Amino acid sequence: MTDLDNIENTTDLVKAIVETYDGDSGINFIDVTNLPVREKIMSILDGLAELLFPGYRGKRIVTQANVHSIVSDILDTLRGELAHQVSLALRHECRMKDCPTCDCETMASDITERLLGKIPQIRRILKTDVQAAFDGDPAARSLEEVVISYPYITAIAIHRIAHELYLMEVPLIPRIMSEYAHSMTGIDIHPGAKIGKRFFIDHATGVVVGETAIIGNNVKFYQGVSLVAISIPKDAQTIQGVKRHPTIEDDVTIYAEATILGNVTIGKGAVIGANAWVRRSVPPGVTVMMAVPETRYKHNNANASHKG
Amino acid sequence: MTDLDNIENTTDLVKAIVETYDGDSGINFIDVTNLPVREKIMSILDGLAELLFPGYRGKRIVTQANVHSIVSDILDTLRGELAHQVSLALRHECRMKDCPTCDCETMASDITERLLGKIPQIRRILKTDVQAAFDGDPAARSLEEVVISYPYITAIAIHRIAHELYLMEVPLIPRIMSEYAHSMTGIDIHPGAKIGKRFFIDHATGVVVGETAIIGNNVKFYQGVSLVAISIPKDAQTIQGVKRHPTIEDDVTIYAEATILGNVTIGKGAVIGANAWVRRSVPPGVTVMMAVPETRYKHNNANASHKG
Amino acid sequence: MTDLDNIENTTDLVKAIVETYDGDSGINFIDVTNLPVREKIMSILDGLAELLFPGYRGKRIVTQANVHSIVSDILDTLRGELAHQVSLALRHECRMKDCPTCDCETMASDITERLLGKIPQIRRILKTDVQAAFDGDPAARSLEEVVISYPYITAIAIHRIAHELYLMEVPLIPRIMSEYAHSMTGIDIHPGAKIGKRFFIDHATGVVVGETAIIGNNVKFYQGVSLVAISIPKDAQTIQGVKRHPTIEDDVTIYAEATILGNVTIGKGAVIGANAWVRRSVPPGVTVMMAVPETRYKHNNANASHKG
Repeated sequence: MTDLDNIENTTDLVKAIVETYDGDSGINFIDVTNLPVREKIMSILDGLAELLFPGYRGKRIVTQANVHSIVSDILDTLRGELAHQVSLALRHECRMKDCPTCDCETMASDITERLLGKIPQIRRILKTDVQAAFDGDPAARSLEEVVISYPYITAIAIHRIAHELYLMEVPLIPRIMSEYAHSMTGIDIHPGAKIGKRFFIDHATGVVVGETAIIGNNVKFYQGVSLVAISIPKDAQTIQGVKRHPTIEDDVTIYAEATILGNVTIGKGAVIGANAWVRRSVPPGVTVMMAVPETRYKHNNANASHKG
Repeated sequence: MTDLDNIENTTDLVKAIVETYDGDSGINFIDVTNLPVREKIMSILDGLAELLFPGYRGKRIVTQANVHSIVSDILDTLRGELAHQVSLALRHECRMKDCPTCDCETMASDITERLLGKIPQIRRILKTDVQAAFDGDPAARSLEEVVISYPYITAIAIHRIAHELYLMEVPLIPRIMSEYAHSMTGIDIHPGAKIGKRFFIDHATGVVVGETAIIGNNVKFYQGVSLVAISIPKDAQTIQGVKRHPTIEDDVTIYAEATILGNVTIGKGAVIGANAWVRRSVPPGVTVMMAVPETRYKHNNANASHKG
Repeated sequence: MTDLDNIENTTDLVKAIVETYDGDSGINFIDVTNLPVREKIMSILDGLAELLFPGYRGKRIVTQANVHSIVSDILDTLRGELAHQVSLALRHECRMKDCPTCDCETMASDITERLLGKIPQIRRILKTDVQAAFDGDPAARSLEEVVISYPYITAIAIHRIAHELYLMEVPLIPRIMSEYAHSMTGIDIHPGAKIGKRFFIDHATGVVVGETAIIGNNVKFYQGVSLVAISIPKDAQTIQGVKRHPTIEDDVTIYAEATILGNVTIGKGAVIGANAWVRRSVPPGVTVMMAVPETRYKHNNANASHKG
């Protein structure tokens, strides 16, 4: 390296780097002109958050007098930006799949209108999530505190948006949204997961909810709960779309770090204890506790020890 | 939806969205003119970090010659911004509680002066935390590395500030601060928790420390340690303020993923093993280990298996 | 406090704060003119990401026609910025160690050229990581989705860069990089860890990989896996550099929340079950499962209970 002068070095290095770009897709995006832009998706989520929780950031003061025009302005901005990102995602997939006949622009517009049309409904369900968080957390002081400060609320709001786009089969964008929430909150909910009303995750960090999981109404999780699939070698033809994650019925509570594995059903009103490891369905109204392992006590500066 | 032309659609949608804002507080903030602004709280924390760790970001070079004027400048800026945010939080609460008689501005000024007056004391205790991190982590190369790079230091610095505001009964802001730290670091410490000197959390992610937890001096945690309450239906009148989380006395070490549940006491010098699940008080000087579950070994390509 | 008027108060407070800066290094950086700047390190990582995954953010469109000039431009910018930050880190360490003879500028330039020269090789190995993520996650729809959205890819790309700087014994910067990745992704990989090809961490949050860990090729982890050292009192002379974390051979799978402790070896093709707690070496081809603790079932509204 010291034999080369700087310019030759740079030229060689550029060449060596560019050579590694050849002949692979996925890890480089050369001549890929239609790719959603992560930063734009994030700013679209910001705009949607303003519609879902008007005024909560204190950025602008929303009053009865100006609320219609503020909502209208945000909608106008979002409509254009979201339709553009969706059309990029659709065109990118078309190009991959050699499907030049579909009209990506029109499809993107339709999808955008359908998502925006869902906002009142998403808001109604988010209200129940906020109330569940307030009711379920003795440390919560007010609904405002929940909305402004809880990472969980960010995660569930993003999930409820991403899930709608997932249902409309938009490529790339739902997962960009959910992994953005994952990065911010430590909560990893796949956009495919179907989640009912009044959902709450206390402390939140480390929760995993898989793609085909179904969660009923009035369910409460604690940190580190995982709804995961039994690991099997990937075979896209057979696995994708197959129900491989748990179904959690209404009124279930799952304590910290419990893992529910595979396509099992946790029945209505069941309670799953902390650290439980559940691979079979649980009937409604049943509590499942792991036997606490034997505990050993030992005085640190003595030979004596006893089990208890 | 395709029946409607765009303008009518927008008008209807605006109306539908705004209708969902009616008649609920907490999830919208219409006509709420006094709400702390999350982004401002974050920039106040940045300013406080400059006072607590002068020069550590390399943003400006602090010398013996300019240090007084730099500190003075930062204090001037912080004083105004913090007093304003605190006054918003107080006025918001007053308005909620129909308490028009108290003088929020004066109270906010007093609180701000009291917090700024605590900086020397907070710095002294943070020094002990940094030293504990360096002493407790064989991978730490220097105190500088700890201060500049460890998310734990961000979390504990924010906690020690948020805790002071919590003690002064400032609404909203302490939790905004602690959940901001939670998002950045994966460490969820409620601002109410009382934490002694020389505290360190190695690897940090997934730690939960509840509102009424008390932690003594010279305590070390590993990742995923939880000091939590036994879950009970929320009843704000009876639960809030009641001691429902553990007390950890001086010189205790708690290994990864251990959970301490309820208002129990872990005595001075005790050691709690990884994954332990502790629901009873532990006397001073005692080590608590969970019996490691029986391990089964199986050769992957053979029928033979044995237990060990 | 109310006795003092504001100006006197400020003067006193400035004095009280500045007094706490005296006589300690590490927690303040007064008269420290050579400290790497965290924000600059983050922007250098952004530039490196553009080289590693050209066009993936959609920020600029990379084509066969412009790719050479784009790569060349990014390299030019990075070369200057990185050399400057490395020289700050080296000079800071020199100053600490009273070693004025070495030529930090030249060393920084050399280190920078060596790192940039490694980009083709880092790219080749990251391709195998992306492929492993796609192959290993049934929910992955495309390589693009993996690159654009998975926090894991951010973490492993940053690790592979930080590890090269670690090998070149650059102070401070490798850990700043890895803890930045830790904050963003919940994955805590020390820059010292040696990681082979085709590595993947599914769900990712809460993973810890210690400084002297060695991971072979084609290894898969799930969330919460920890490769940690047995805790011993720090003694920099004897512990630093000693191999104190596990070695994981090729083709090993480690399921969620398993902990591997100390300098043990998990043999080629072994499988470690979820929540396992492994303190001894495991031969090649062996599956280690923890016996699932006894599970107790209880009907919530009945006295009857049974064990199963």
